[in-house]
Amino acid sequence: MNDDLKKKTQETAKRLFGEGIKMDPPYVTWREFDKNLANDFSMFITGNLYSRAVLTLPERQMAACAMLAALRARDELKLHVNAALNVGCDPRKLTEVFFQLAPYAGMPAVNEALQVYREVLKERGGWPLR
Amino acid sequence: MNDDLKKKTQETAKRLFGEGIKMDPPYVTWREFDKNLANDFSMFITGNLYSRAVLTLPERQMAACAMLAALRARDELKLHVNAALNVGCDPRKLTEVFFQLAPYAGMPAVNEALQVYREVLKERGGWPLR
Amino acid sequence: MNDDLKKKTQETAKRLFGEGIKMDPPYVTWREFDKNLANDFSMFITGNLYSRAVLTLPERQMAACAMLAALRARDELKLHVNAALNVGCDPRKLTEVFFQLAPYAGMPAVNEALQVYREVLKERGGWPLR
Amino acid sequence: MNDDLKKKTQETAKRLFGEGIKMDPPYVTWREFDKNLANDFSMFITGNLYSRAVLTLPERQMAACAMLAALRARDELKLHVNAALNVGCDPRKLTEVFFQLAPYAGMPAVNEALQVYREVLKERGGWPLR
Amino acid sequence: MNDDLKKKTQETAKRLFGEGIKMDPPYVTWREFDKNLANDFSMFITGNLYSRAVLTLPERQMAACAMLAALRARDELKLHVNAALNVGCDPRKLTEVFFQLAPYAGMPAVNEALQVYREVLKERGGWPLR
Amino acid sequence: MNDDLKKKTQETAKRLFGEGIKMDPPYVTWREFDKNLANDFSMFITGNLYSRAVLTLPERQMAACAMLAALRARDELKLHVNAALNVGCDPRKLTEVFFQLAPYAGMPAVNEALQVYREVLKERGGWPLR
Repeated sequence: MNDDLKKKTQETAKRLFGEGIKMDPPYVTWREFDKNLANDFSMFITGNLYSRAVLTLPERQMAACAMLAALRARDELKLHVNAALNVGCDPRKLTEVFFQLAPYAGMPAVNEALQVYREVLKERGGWPLR
Repeated sequence: MNDDLKKKTQETAKRLFGEGIKMDPPYVTWREFDKNLANDFSMFITGNLYSRAVLTLPERQMAACAMLAALRARDELKLHVNAALNVGCDPRKLTEVFFQLAPYAGMPAVNEALQVYREVLKERGGWPLR
Repeated sequence: MNDDLKKKTQETAKRLFGEGIKMDPPYVTWREFDKNLANDFSMFITGNLYSRAVLTLPERQMAACAMLAALRARDELKLHVNAALNVGCDPRKLTEVFFQLAPYAGMPAVNEALQVYREVLKERGGWPLR
Repeated sequence: MNDDLKKKTQETAKRLFGEGIKMDPPYVTWREFDKNLANDFSMFITGNLYSRAVLTLPERQMAACAMLAALRARDELKLHVNAALNVGCDPRKLTEVFFQLAPYAGMPAVNEALQVYREVLKERGGWPLR
Repeated sequence: MNDDLKKKTQETAKRLFGEGIKMDPPYVTWREFDKNLANDFSMFITGNLYSRAVLTLPERQMAACAMLAALRARDELKLHVNAALNVGCDPRKLTEVFFQLAPYAGMPAVNEALQVYREVLKERGGWPLR
Repeated sequence: MNDDLKKKTQETAKRLFGEGIKMDPPYVTWREFDKNLANDFSMFITGNLYSRAVLTLPERQMAACAMLAALRARDELKLHVNAALNVGCDPRKLTEVFFQLAPYAGMPAVNEALQVYREVLKERGGWPLR
């Protein structure tokens, strides 16, 4: 069962983070401090949570980007915007999610999200959006 | 053009808030303080923003619920969870979005979102989820 | 010098909190836990900070209300909205400050601030605003 | 190995939440929505994380209370203040941690934490602190 | 009427952002993603909201700076500190507003606001304040 | 008495910030804007609050680091992580406090805290932790 979880973790991580911009996932930092806990975190988040099929990966990434942008978590947003594009999210819908932050999280969150998004698109060669 | 915007505002508001739980939308409070600005807010948020077709209304509500839960905006989350169910969001996917807050916004946000969601489902007669 | 600070603290506290709604200031709670530190807090905040004359008390209260509303600190906002009215802030300008939260802190902050403001106005007998 | 994790989870949960105030832990809510994920959360948080011996349980609870108070997560703070007292944290040190929020998280966080703490002490029959 | 709104938007934008430090306003970013929505945002925020006369522009900017500093929205604070000086806010009163964040938002917000303010003053040639 | 407070302030400041990484404490910025208020802040925070003996300085610094990391106050966290090491906090316990942010403040707070901690350890020549 743990082998199965490990396999799911690795496959999901590859789909999310295997392409696009070059950026160390947080796992690298966790491992430098504590190898065991890094594995626990990774298996819990990517294995237990992200591998659940209730949401498709694109739906999950749209939600993750909405949350991270609302929280103004710049680095994690960058990682997950790239992952969203990797799993096939529609780039125009991502823009729209970031604009929709306006009435709830305010323009500072909108502005930061759009800047991060533009950076990712430029690194991936997908800027400007048509 | 302004008549067109007013009509879109009213139609979108009806689809989102016309059914389900009884809860005054914030518009009622805005209007008590300033009628003109209340209209400006409403036409901008519901008219200009929510009426855009890049996201379907269910997609938009999934994103709104993700953001509002991350921001721990309890009243607005209640309003928009109900709206999400009104426009046809899958109730199991909403649950999953709230669980996914865990690694980004932390368990206090998860717990509050699930409590709000349970309240709304109970008021709508849809609890427990099968 | 400390007597002077104590006197300034008491005079400023009286101008801010001596009238209007009935609500225990936080000082009462601090003192229940630690009498010495309660005095230190009070002399620092109300004595050292609030007694400075760079801002008039109404200007200071407008800024305090703007901050507390942005931080969604409901109880403290209630206390300071009342204090703002006690020191002569224009009630319509307070409304406008809360509306202006919209583009920066988002509508959840606007809605909470307006609700708190309406509660205070009702308790003071000043609702509705003409 | 999973049996071992389950046993550690249960033992740690009992030490933390087995006494004092009556309050449903969040696990009860999680389980109503999804039994499997509730177990994953519980085993990860209480099993993997809280059972680690780098920090003693009282040290861990002091840190948890500091964080939750800074985040103004009222319900979770209540739960963990009670747990802190259950595992033997010094009640005067808890007070001091909440006062120390002042320069970093501001007085709204101090005030909320002290109110929650007073509620818990009253329910446990430990108020006022000598 | 829309022409009137557009004119008010342009005039208010010029008074706020027409002088002082060089910094792209967020409008530039919005427009790169969606020209129509950028106009809607701009006309709503600068046109509908900022052009209202209940607050003078200096009063409005004092409130905006208080909020943005409390929210630790660094880029937007920089833009609006400059705008505050453009419309004639008293530089010593701005300092005082940032110090007053201390009891409500905590010292991290004070420190960030003062750093941003010092940067703006240096770029404008107004540092040190006499 | 004020001389006594000044002396306590200076002694505590020296123990906390006298060694390790080179980084201007916020006092330097406060003083550039207002010398009197800078002294009031410093005497209140470092003198009145940090000099209290209810918590040992290492206990106080563990709490300060937990709070600042939860608040994602990067600069202040850097200052206080260094201070924590100066007063003798166990480096492995600090790591554990930052990992424990996961269920409450979310992974963006964990990641930022670990990055800041790693920077400080590198500047002090204490990286990697054995």
